[in-house]
Amino acid sequence: MELSQRGRLMPASPIRRLTPLADAAKARGTQVYHLNIGQPDIPTPPEMLDALRNFREPVLAYGPSSGLAETRAAMAGYLQDLGWPIAPSEVLVTEGGSEAILFAMNAICDTGDEILVFEPFYTNYSGFACMAGVTLKAVETRVEDGYHLPAREVIEAAIGPKTRAILYSSPGNPTGTVFTPAEVAMLVDLAVKHDLYVIGDEAYREFAYDGRTATGVLGVASEAGAMDRAILIDSISKRFSACGARIGFLVTQNAGVLDAALRFGQARLCPPTLEQYAAVAGYGLLQKYVPPMIEEYRRRRDTVMAGLRRIPGAVCAVPEGAFYVQPRLPVGDADAFAQFLLNDFSVDGRTVMVAPGNGFYATPGKGREEIRIAYVLKEADLDVAMGLLVRAVETWNARRADAT
Amino acid sequence: MELSQRGRLMPASPIRRLTPLADAAKARGTQVYHLNIGQPDIPTPPEMLDALRNFREPVLAYGPSSGLAETRAAMAGYLQDLGWPIAPSEVLVTEGGSEAILFAMNAICDTGDEILVFEPFYTNYSGFACMAGVTLKAVETRVEDGYHLPAREVIEAAIGPKTRAILYSSPGNPTGTVFTPAEVAMLVDLAVKHDLYVIGDEAYREFAYDGRTATGVLGVASEAGAMDRAILIDSISKRFSACGARIGFLVTQNAGVLDAALRFGQARLCPPTLEQYAAVAGYGLLQKYVPPMIEEYRRRRDTVMAGLRRIPGAVCAVPEGAFYVQPRLPVGDADAFAQFLLNDFSVDGRTVMVAPGNGFYATPGKGREEIRIAYVLKEADLDVAMGLLVRAVETWNARRADAT
Repeated sequence: MELSQRGRLMPASPIRRLTPLADAAKARGTQVYHLNIGQPDIPTPPEMLDALRNFREPVLAYGPSSGLAETRAAMAGYLQDLGWPIAPSEVLVTEGGSEAILFAMNAICDTGDEILVFEPFYTNYSGFACMAGVTLKAVETRVEDGYHLPAREVIEAAIGPKTRAILYSSPGNPTGTVFTPAEVAMLVDLAVKHDLYVIGDEAYREFAYDGRTATGVLGVASEAGAMDRAILIDSISKRFSACGARIGFLVTQNAGVLDAALRFGQARLCPPTLEQYAAVAGYGLLQKYVPPMIEEYRRRRDTVMAGLRRIPGAVCAVPEGAFYVQPRLPVGDADAFAQFLLNDFSVDGRTVMVAPGNGFYATPGKGREEIRIAYVLKEADLDVAMGLLVRAVETWNARRADAT
Repeated sequence: MELSQRGRLMPASPIRRLTPLADAAKARGTQVYHLNIGQPDIPTPPEMLDALRNFREPVLAYGPSSGLAETRAAMAGYLQDLGWPIAPSEVLVTEGGSEAILFAMNAICDTGDEILVFEPFYTNYSGFACMAGVTLKAVETRVEDGYHLPAREVIEAAIGPKTRAILYSSPGNPTGTVFTPAEVAMLVDLAVKHDLYVIGDEAYREFAYDGRTATGVLGVASEAGAMDRAILIDSISKRFSACGARIGFLVTQNAGVLDAALRFGQARLCPPTLEQYAAVAGYGLLQKYVPPMIEEYRRRRDTVMAGLRRIPGAVCAVPEGAFYVQPRLPVGDADAFAQFLLNDFSVDGRTVMVAPGNGFYATPGKGREEIRIAYVLKEADLDVAMGLLVRAVETWNARRADAT
């Protein structure tokens, strides 16, 4: 009984594939600080949970394939407040941002087509590309540059006859990089010049620090007269700390893409009904809920950076947004190091879990010395976790020195 | 800006694509009886809605990609009670049965591979096949045979070098047909002989009437020593009248398929968290909730059949299960007739919506005179709706006669 090629090639999530090792550590009584996964500990707004509890229909029924009218209107209103001329009919509610990515890829790519990405990139782009038969053509960004874009000609050289789109996340997962207006404008301009779509994954839009504002693909495309090329991927998961709701959005003014995505959506019938009401409640709380949360994450970022600075040889720019940082650590093989953390390391019965950085690259061998840290724990816990990481690097390198 | 080939070819749902016409009819003040979509009016068990309301965690967090442990255990326990030796680790929770179908296709097929289906079949198989680049090879079943399977040699003749699986639903959507043990055994035997997977979509398992019991693919495969070939698709949508929950299952003892499906699942992170608790509550209510519901549907089936018998020339066997019937009506073009119902027909401000039958076929031209009726309304409403349908056929045929 053979599997398909894509069934064999489909990558395991680098964020989740070490989970069995973490489970084993926990079974041994070790406390594991999870810095591997972007699951915030910030409470979901109680008003959103109330919206779930206040559901009073007798039947938990299918909703429209495109999402509930009130949810589409809430998302469109939010985007309008950002200054972008989006109608509710241009918003498709999806099963998380995940499904929006898959729908976008399927709508514009056939098997063998290429999408240009910047590595390191959100690892699940690889998974969706594998499912869709799409090749990710990766342009490298470097930790030394704070993972900002390389020169235009470097990006342009990667665009070929099979390239259909440029896909990026900003604020970036796993980089924490917030692309400047000039960077986003360059990507949109390249899309116009080479007849491509440009897909902006902006699930972390509000997560920008030190006075920054994230530049939106719809805003730039609108100014450039290129709205038919722009596809926005969005989600309530991080904005409202509601990852388990599985509510995302695909937003575009390209009628063909929207129609194709809707037909993909009809096949799976509808996104979860109940959580769409919670999403509506969430968008009404934006001004109250989000700013204090961002300030909390800014403090956490500073805690993580203070820890990283205690690791001699660690390379990392201060992250500008999202809640990730992808440092290069002097550990040789970061994948082996991440396994060591779970298998062979603990201090006072505690250890830390991180995501190996190579899983965020398409190019084999890249990111070998990098890890991704998600700063989703309280400052006090983060402080302990970073202390464990500092000790672990010392222990790991002492062992490596002994072995040679 | 071009779409992909699959973006262009992706079929609109025949169940949902006439919705704009229905919306227009409603805007004109016409009451529309929805027989087009399998959205039951049966209340979701209040205990399941309570389970949703009783969620007390402060964070609506990601769950495991494979589903919550308690949900997998509840589903495995349910299958064990049916006599099938399934462990919780062999159950993957999916975003509805829909996602389970897509994962199964992706795990075993690459672009250009074929899956054998029996037409008329659940229309969304076409959509998922389009997304996955899979060709559906359709073997015809006939309304005159109650949509039971043709002879073994007819099915065998459709199996070719690219065939990877046989996919069927029983109790059947849109046919209402419950395959006999001999029919399921034949499919499993063909799978063994030709080295195929056999995918049983059993979302309507309990919906079998007149003393019938639906034969399960896992039971037959277990007896045949072919468990590594069997993939079960299941869902809580119909069993617990919880379509909007989007909780389904992929169940298999084939470790490779399970592992590939889990990796597809990791890319989309997790199914909705909250509704998985509702599912656990549901499985505890099976004996209390399901039998009276099935008796209610049996009465509705009889109401629909009584109506169909009033249409001269209608051809239809008494459905044995599920809550659909796919009759052939003497209306020429059933798609035009379905549009007529919404655009140009009403009695006392009321009309009825049905799904054109051709959307349930892969072969162009087939099912042209058929419609699918979902008997998901109360008997009194169904009675009115069927009366409207009887009148509509008369009116439609009188108009057609006038036009010639």
